[in-house]
Amino acid sequence: MRDIAVFSGSAHPALAAEICAHLETPLNPVRVSRFANDCLEVQLQANCRERDVFLVQPLVAPVQEHLVELLLMCDAARGASAARITVVIPHYAYARSDKKDAPRISLGGRLVADLLVAAGADRVLAMTLHSPQVHGFFSVPVDHLHALRELARHFRRHDLTNTTVVSPDLGNAKEAAAFARLLGVPVAAGAKQRFAGDTVAISSVIGDVSGRDVIVLDDEIAKGSTVIELLDRLRELGARKVRVACTHGLFASGALKRLADQPDVVEIVCTNTVPISAQADTESTEKLKVLSIAPALAEAMRRIHNGESVSALFDGL
Amino acid sequence: MRDIAVFSGSAHPALAAEICAHLETPLNPVRVSRFANDCLEVQLQANCRERDVFLVQPLVAPVQEHLVELLLMCDAARGASAARITVVIPHYAYARSDKKDAPRISLGGRLVADLLVAAGADRVLAMTLHSPQVHGFFSVPVDHLHALRELARHFRRHDLTNTTVVSPDLGNAKEAAAFARLLGVPVAAGAKQRFAGDTVAISSVIGDVSGRDVIVLDDEIAKGSTVIELLDRLRELGARKVRVACTHGLFASGALKRLADQPDVVEIVCTNTVPISAQADTESTEKLKVLSIAPALAEAMRRIHNGESVSALFDGL
Amino acid sequence: MRDIAVFSGSAHPALAAEICAHLETPLNPVRVSRFANDCLEVQLQANCRERDVFLVQPLVAPVQEHLVELLLMCDAARGASAARITVVIPHYAYARSDKKDAPRISLGGRLVADLLVAAGADRVLAMTLHSPQVHGFFSVPVDHLHALRELARHFRRHDLTNTTVVSPDLGNAKEAAAFARLLGVPVAAGAKQRFAGDTVAISSVIGDVSGRDVIVLDDEIAKGSTVIELLDRLRELGARKVRVACTHGLFASGALKRLADQPDVVEIVCTNTVPISAQADTESTEKLKVLSIAPALAEAMRRIHNGESVSALFDGL
Amino acid sequence: MRDIAVFSGSAHPALAAEICAHLETPLNPVRVSRFANDCLEVQLQANCRERDVFLVQPLVAPVQEHLVELLLMCDAARGASAARITVVIPHYAYARSDKKDAPRISLGGRLVADLLVAAGADRVLAMTLHSPQVHGFFSVPVDHLHALRELARHFRRHDLTNTTVVSPDLGNAKEAAAFARLLGVPVAAGAKQRFAGDTVAISSVIGDVSGRDVIVLDDEIAKGSTVIELLDRLRELGARKVRVACTHGLFASGALKRLADQPDVVEIVCTNTVPISAQADTESTEKLKVLSIAPALAEAMRRIHNGESVSALFDGL
Amino acid sequence: MRDIAVFSGSAHPALAAEICAHLETPLNPVRVSRFANDCLEVQLQANCRERDVFLVQPLVAPVQEHLVELLLMCDAARGASAARITVVIPHYAYARSDKKDAPRISLGGRLVADLLVAAGADRVLAMTLHSPQVHGFFSVPVDHLHALRELARHFRRHDLTNTTVVSPDLGNAKEAAAFARLLGVPVAAGAKQRFAGDTVAISSVIGDVSGRDVIVLDDEIAKGSTVIELLDRLRELGARKVRVACTHGLFASGALKRLADQPDVVEIVCTNTVPISAQADTESTEKLKVLSIAPALAEAMRRIHNGESVSALFDGL
Amino acid sequence: MRDIAVFSGSAHPALAAEICAHLETPLNPVRVSRFANDCLEVQLQANCRERDVFLVQPLVAPVQEHLVELLLMCDAARGASAARITVVIPHYAYARSDKKDAPRISLGGRLVADLLVAAGADRVLAMTLHSPQVHGFFSVPVDHLHALRELARHFRRHDLTNTTVVSPDLGNAKEAAAFARLLGVPVAAGAKQRFAGDTVAISSVIGDVSGRDVIVLDDEIAKGSTVIELLDRLRELGARKVRVACTHGLFASGALKRLADQPDVVEIVCTNTVPISAQADTESTEKLKVLSIAPALAEAMRRIHNGESVSALFDGL
Repeated sequence: MRDIAVFSGSAHPALAAEICAHLETPLNPVRVSRFANDCLEVQLQANCRERDVFLVQPLVAPVQEHLVELLLMCDAARGASAARITVVIPHYAYARSDKKDAPRISLGGRLVADLLVAAGADRVLAMTLHSPQVHGFFSVPVDHLHALRELARHFRRHDLTNTTVVSPDLGNAKEAAAFARLLGVPVAAGAKQRFAGDTVAISSVIGDVSGRDVIVLDDEIAKGSTVIELLDRLRELGARKVRVACTHGLFASGALKRLADQPDVVEIVCTNTVPISAQADTESTEKLKVLSIAPALAEAMRRIHNGESVSALFDGL
Repeated sequence: MRDIAVFSGSAHPALAAEICAHLETPLNPVRVSRFANDCLEVQLQANCRERDVFLVQPLVAPVQEHLVELLLMCDAARGASAARITVVIPHYAYARSDKKDAPRISLGGRLVADLLVAAGADRVLAMTLHSPQVHGFFSVPVDHLHALRELARHFRRHDLTNTTVVSPDLGNAKEAAAFARLLGVPVAAGAKQRFAGDTVAISSVIGDVSGRDVIVLDDEIAKGSTVIELLDRLRELGARKVRVACTHGLFASGALKRLADQPDVVEIVCTNTVPISAQADTESTEKLKVLSIAPALAEAMRRIHNGESVSALFDGL
Repeated sequence: MRDIAVFSGSAHPALAAEICAHLETPLNPVRVSRFANDCLEVQLQANCRERDVFLVQPLVAPVQEHLVELLLMCDAARGASAARITVVIPHYAYARSDKKDAPRISLGGRLVADLLVAAGADRVLAMTLHSPQVHGFFSVPVDHLHALRELARHFRRHDLTNTTVVSPDLGNAKEAAAFARLLGVPVAAGAKQRFAGDTVAISSVIGDVSGRDVIVLDDEIAKGSTVIELLDRLRELGARKVRVACTHGLFASGALKRLADQPDVVEIVCTNTVPISAQADTESTEKLKVLSIAPALAEAMRRIHNGESVSALFDGL
Repeated sequence: MRDIAVFSGSAHPALAAEICAHLETPLNPVRVSRFANDCLEVQLQANCRERDVFLVQPLVAPVQEHLVELLLMCDAARGASAARITVVIPHYAYARSDKKDAPRISLGGRLVADLLVAAGADRVLAMTLHSPQVHGFFSVPVDHLHALRELARHFRRHDLTNTTVVSPDLGNAKEAAAFARLLGVPVAAGAKQRFAGDTVAISSVIGDVSGRDVIVLDDEIAKGSTVIELLDRLRELGARKVRVACTHGLFASGALKRLADQPDVVEIVCTNTVPISAQADTESTEKLKVLSIAPALAEAMRRIHNGESVSALFDGL
Repeated sequence: MRDIAVFSGSAHPALAAEICAHLETPLNPVRVSRFANDCLEVQLQANCRERDVFLVQPLVAPVQEHLVELLLMCDAARGASAARITVVIPHYAYARSDKKDAPRISLGGRLVADLLVAAGADRVLAMTLHSPQVHGFFSVPVDHLHALRELARHFRRHDLTNTTVVSPDLGNAKEAAAFARLLGVPVAAGAKQRFAGDTVAISSVIGDVSGRDVIVLDDEIAKGSTVIELLDRLRELGARKVRVACTHGLFASGALKRLADQPDVVEIVCTNTVPISAQADTESTEKLKVLSIAPALAEAMRRIHNGESVSALFDGL
Repeated sequence: MRDIAVFSGSAHPALAAEICAHLETPLNPVRVSRFANDCLEVQLQANCRERDVFLVQPLVAPVQEHLVELLLMCDAARGASAARITVVIPHYAYARSDKKDAPRISLGGRLVADLLVAAGADRVLAMTLHSPQVHGFFSVPVDHLHALRELARHFRRHDLTNTTVVSPDLGNAKEAAAFARLLGVPVAAGAKQRFAGDTVAISSVIGDVSGRDVIVLDDEIAKGSTVIELLDRLRELGARKVRVACTHGLFASGALKRLADQPDVVEIVCTNTVPISAQADTESTEKLKVLSIAPALAEAMRRIHNGESVSALFDGL
C-alpha cells in the first residue's frame, strides 16, 4: 500500500498534529509564502509522489485566506504527483450557502465544492455539514462524519436521570434525537417561526422540559443568538440546569462570554473542529469544555487509507 | 432573436399543449419509437437548428421511461444543432433523493441532474423542488418556480376571515408562511417527530387552529399519509372545515379517494404539474380542483426566451 | 491487490450468480427501492471502498428501468469510493442505435455510453455488440467478447460433415466465417436488399447450401423475422436440417415458438446473455438449448481484475 | 446575424475558394509558418471575433500535416474569440479507423474527433463518411452530406436505358440503391467474402448485369483494387460499358492510370472533396470527370450560418 | 445585440465607475455580505439574463478576499443566466506564480486561471501580464492590453531631447524598446545577475545613460527594490533626472515614499489598474502622477461587446 | 507494484532502447501502419493492461507525423487499459510557441499539451523546456529534467582554470549560472537587443571574457545563428578557445557544419534528446560530442514508476 502523507494548512495545525499523533505518522511541514503583492505560494515540504495525501484545513476565519491556501495545497500536491488527494475539512463553512433564496446570488456551497475538485481534490472528509444535501454538491466521494459519539461519551459521565436533550430548532432535531438515543434520555426541540417579515423567533418548545436538566445541542454556534433565545424559552418553561453542546464552536462576536455569563448555563461543550478563539476569558474557560475529534478523524483517515468501511464507524448510532 | 421551438415528451402532452397555447407557438410533434428490444428512439419532428428549444417533461410514472425519453430528446436536439436546450421539468421527482442517509446509496437528485447535462441540457425550468438545496445539484442555470400565486388566486375567492394555513411539517413552513401572507391569514404548522426508531408522527401543531377553517398546504401529495395524520391532529384541536392544497398532486395508491373520503375535507386543490391519475372516481372528482400552472410556465419560458428577469415574476411574494 | 466486489442489478441475477460461482467470490446483495413517486434508489449492500467493483446488468426489457438502475448503481459505487467500476453489460441493447439515418433522431448508442461514464463507469465489459464501431462510442476502455467459442463447443458434438454455417446477412458474415473456421465447415450468407422503399428482403444466398445441413448464426434474435425469411430461401435452395444459433436470444413477440414451430428447425441455440423469456412452452423448450457465457465473462473479469490480457482469450479464433 | 468568416488550410485552397465564390464571401488568408524545428504556427489573417468561422480542410496527404494545421487553426480561431467554429472536412480520412479489430490498436476515427473538439471545434460538416457510425464518434453536432445528387445530375445526361448501378460490396449497397433510385435504374452489388485467412475477394455479384451498361459506385477509391476486381467479375458476367463513380477520388499509387487503362472503362467520375493528384496523364485525364461539390458545401454552410435545416437539402433522395 | 451589464467587486470600484462613464452604461450595484462565519455571499443587483456581463476586479490586497469575491460573482452571473461573462482583471497578481522553480510548489498563475473558468468565466480582459506566457494558462480567450500608449501620451508633453528609456532588467526590455519607439528616444536596460546564491543584483546597464535624463519603465512596482538598485547604477553612470513609470503601482511597504525620497527622481508615473494606496504622504503625492487606463479598458470592452477587433487597438505600436 | 512497459514511437528508437537497457526492461515493439489514404494506425505489441506505460517520443522532424503518432499511441494505450500513461518527450519542440505576440495566432505549446491529455496522457516527462512557464501549460503532472549534470561531467575532464561559461542571451542566463556553479567557474552572458524593427543583435557581453576559454551554453541549437553571432562578439572581446554546448542539438540547415567550420570552436557538445542528423560530415563529427541523457531519463522513469522523488535527482545543483 502506498504511504500516507498528511499536511496541514495554517488554519488549525494543532488539530492536524493531534490527528497525526493518533495515526503515528509525521505531520509534514508546509511552507506558505506571501509575496509583496499579497499572493500566496505553497510548498509541500515532503515527497508526495504516489503518496496518499491528506490536506487538513477547516474553513475558519479568515475563510478566504484559508480556502485559497487549501486550493494551492491541492494544486501543489497534484503537481507533485500525489496518488490521491483527500481534503479533510472539519468545518466546511460554505455549507451554509446551500440555496438560492434570492435572485442572482452566489451558491457558495456548490461553487467551493467545484473549486476544490478543479484544484485537484479527489475526495473529501467533512464533519457535521450544515445540511445533509450539501453532500450532493460534491462530484467526488465525501465521507461525512459527526461528533455525536464524542459528545455522548462526555455527557455520560454526568447523572442524566433528569435530563432532556433540546434542539434549538426542528432542522437539527433528527441529530438531537439520535444523540438522545445514545444517552438514553428524551428529546425536545424549539420551533422557530419566520412568520412575519424576516424576523425569526423560537415560539415554542415541543416536548417536556419543565423541571428538567437540559442539554442544548446544535451543529454550530457562531453568534449564539439562537441559543440565547432558546434559553429564555427554557426558563419560561421551568427548565433547570443547562448544558450547551455543539460540534463547531465558532463563538464569534463574544458569543462564548455571552453564553458563559448566563447563570443557568453550567457547561459549554464543543469540539475542536475549529480552533477555539482567544476571546475566552477566565470565566468562560472554566465553563468551556473542548472535546477532541482528532481520534475520529484519524480513524476515518486510517480507514480511507486502508480501504475499510467508514460508515461502519457509526454502527449502533 | 432566434425562434422558440417547444416539444413535449409523452409524460404530459396536455400541459405542453396548454403552455404552447399561451405562448401562441405550435407544439412540435415528437416521434417516440420502441424497438423490438425495448429500446427507445426519439425523433424531433421540426427543425431545431439554431432554435431556442424547450423540452417539456415532468418525471411522473413510469419515471424511468420518461427520464430516458427526456435524455434522448436532449440528445436529439443537441445533435440537431439547437441553439439552446431548456428542459422544462414541472415535477422533478428525483429531488427527493437529496441526501445520503445510509451508506452506499445512490444520490438520484444529483445523478439525474448530471445526466441531463451530459445529454445536452443547457438550462432547467423546475417547479416547487422538494428541497431548495436541489437547485445546487445542477451545474447549469435553474429557474425555480412555485405555484403559490396560482393557489392564492383560487383561495381568495372564498371567505377567508376565519382561515389558517397549516403546513404538515416545519420543513415546508417557510412556503406556508409566504402563502399565508399572500392570503392575509395566520399560519400554523404540524411538528413531525422522528424521536423513536423510524416511526415519524405529527406530535403537535404549532399555532392556533381551534375553531378555524384550515388550508393544509404541502409541496406534493403522494400516498397522503402525512396529511391524513395531520387531519387527526386538527380534529383533536377543534379545527373546522379543511381544504387541502399542494403543487404536485401525485395521488398514488388511492390517495385521492382516501382524502376525498374524509368528511371534513371540503376541497382538494392541486396543480397540473403532473397529469391527474385516472383513479379519481365521481366523489373525488367533485372535491378535486386542478389549477393550471401552464400560464406561469409559459410566462417563465417567454421571459427565458426573451432574456427578461424571471425572478421578477415573484415580486411581492 | 485490492479485492473484487461483484453486484448484480435486477435484470439478470441468475447470470451474475453463475459468474460469481466461477470466480469463487460472493454475489453481493443490492437493495433496489421504488418510492411512492416511482423513483428508484439503490443501495449496494457490501463495502465498495477501494474495491474493484463489477456491476452486472444486461439492458433487457424493461430496458429503461434496467438502464436507470445501472446508472444509480454506478453512482452508488462511485460515492462509496470504489477503486474502479466496471459495468458488465452482456447485452448492450442500445448498440442498435448507432447511426443517424433520419434527421433529428437520438443516437442512443452514443448517448447511453456517455451516461454510463457520467454516472461513474470506469470501464465496460460487453458481449457481441451489434456493430463493431459501437466500441468507439465509449470514452472508457471496453473489453468486447463474443460467444463463438461457446457455440462452437456445442456444435462440435454433432456430426458436421455435411454442414454449412449461414449468416442471415452480409453484415454478420465476418463473424459467421470465423465461426465456420472454428468448426472446420464452409460458410454461406444471405444477401439482404433494401432496394425499394423501406422493404428489406433476403434476395439470395451466397454459397452452396443445397443438400446441406445448416447452422444459421446471428448476433441476436428479437422477433426472428429475418431468420424466418432466410428459412424460406434455404428451403427453396434445398437445404436440409436447420439449427439456429445466436448470442442474444431476446425472442420477443413469440419468436421462440414461431421458430420452434418450423419443422426443419431441429435446434435453437442461444446463450444466457439475457434471461430467456417465460414464453417458452414445452415444445419450444425441447428444441431450445441455452449455453452459458458465465464462464467466459468470469474469466474476462478475472483477467481484468488481475491485469492480464483479455485479448489473449481469443487466441486461435 | 453575426458575419461569416471562411478560412482554408493548405490542403485544398481551390475548393475553399470555389465555396466562397458561391457564398459570395471572401476567402480569408491564413499564414502557416514552419519554424526551424519543423513546428507549425498558424495566423488567421482576418478578424474572427464574434464571427461564424468555417475552417475548410480535407484530411488528404500529407494527412498528419493537414490535421495538425487544422487543429492549430481551431486553436487560433478560439483564441481569437470566434463565436462558433465549424470545421468543414470534405474528406475525413480517419473515418476508416472505426473499429478495434485487433488488440491494442488506436481508434483514429474517435481520437481525431476528440482532438478536434479539444482544439475548439464547435461543429463539423463532413461528406460521405466511410461508415455512418462515425457520426457517433463526435461529441459535437455533425452535418453529414453526400454527393449523390451531384453524381446523378452528371449521369442523367447519358442514355441510361440499359444501365445498372453496381456497388462493389454490400457495405455500400444502401447508398448505391439510393443512387439507382435517383437515376431510375436497377441496382446490383458485389459480395465480398473474407472466408479464408485474410484474403478478401468478390465472389459474386447479386443482381443482373449481363449485357448491361454499368455504373460502379463507391464512397472512395484509393488504390482501386476492389474496383479492378469487380471489373473482372463484371466481365465474366457479360457486362458492357463501365463507368466508375465515387465521392472521394484519392487515386493513390497510380490508381487513376490503372483504372483508365481498362478498356471497358469509358469514364471515371469523382468529386473534388480532395484535390486530384498530379499523377493524371493525358489518357487518364480524358476519361476523368471531376464534379464539384463546392455548391453543395456552400449551400450547407449557408444554411448552417442562417440556422436553416440542412437535412432538407436531401429531401426527395 | 444583447445588452452590456458591468459590475464591480469591492477591489476597485472607482476604476469600474470610470470605465462605465466612458461606456455610458450604469455601473450595476453588487451586494457583498459577510456572514458570522466569515463566508462571503454575492448578489448581483441587476438583471444578468442574456446580458453580456463584465465583472471588474483587479487582484489587489487583500488578494484572497478579492479573488474569492470574483469567483462568487462569476458563479452568481452564471446562475443568473448571463449570456457571456468576461472577467476584467486589470492587475492579475497571480501571474508572477508562473513557473515551478522549486519542487512541490503551487503554480498559482495556472490554478487561478482554472478556478475562474470553473466558476463560469467565459473570457478574460487583462493588462500587462507579468510574463506573456501566462496568456497560455487560460483555456478561454484572453485579451491582453498594455498601457504604453497612455504612458507615452503623458511623457510626450515633456522635452525628451536628452532622454533615454531604461528597463530595470532584460526581461522587460522588449516592452521598454516598444515604449522608446513610441517616444522616439533610445533605450537602455539594466542587467540583473543571479550568479551567486540567491542574491540578485543589477550588475550593469546596457546602453548609454551618461548625462541623459532617464525614464525607468517597469511592469509593476511592489517594494521598489529593483528600481532603487537601478538608481544607484544610473547615478554611477552619470544619469541626470529620473522619471519612474510603471503600469501596476502597488507601492507596498512604503515603496512610494522611498522612491519619492530619492532626490533625482522627479516624477513617478503609474496607472490606475490598482487603487493607489493611502500611504502617499504629501511629498509623495506631489511627485506621483496616476494615469487612467479606464478609457483603454472601456474601449476594449466596447469592442469585445460589439465583436470588433481588439488587436487593432494596438496598431502602430 | 504493477509492471513497467516502455514503448517507443518512430522518432528516436535508439534513445528508447538505451533507456530500456538502463532500466533492464525490454523495449516493447510498436507497429505503425500507414494506410493508402496516408492515415496512421498504431498497435502496441505487448500487453498494457494495468501496466505503468511509458511512451518515448521527442517531437523532432517530421514533427507533425511524430506528434500524431504519439497521440495514437496514447489512445491505443488508454484503450488497452494502461494503468497510467507517461509520455516521455525529451524534446518538446512546440514549447517555443508559448506566447501570443501577434493577433489570431495559434498557441501550439498549450494546444499540444491539451491534445496529449485528450488522447490519454496521465503525466509528462520533459527535458529542458524552452521557457519554464510551459510547465504550466499542462493540466497533468510534469517532471521537467535538464541535462546540466551530464554536460558538467563532460567538461570537468578538461582543465577549466581559465574558463568562463557564456550564455548567448539573458533568457538562458539562470541555467548558465547554475552550470557555472557546477563547474566552479565564472559566468557571462550576451545581451540580445531587439531595439529597432525586428532585427535582433547581440550588442554586448556582460562579464569578462577577455583572454578566457569559453563554454557557450544554450538550451537548443537549431540554425545556430545566435551562437555564430555570439562568436563574433567573443572574438572582438578577446576570448580564446570556444566550446559550444546545448541540450537539444537540432542542427537544422547545415548548422553543425557551420559551427564546426569556425576555427576557434574546438568542440560542440550536445545530448541525444534528438537523433543527430545525418548532415554531420567527417570534420563535424570530429568536433561533435553527443552525451547520452538516457541514464537520466531512465533514472527519472524508475523513480516515477516507484513513486520516489524526482526533484531529489537535482539536489546539489
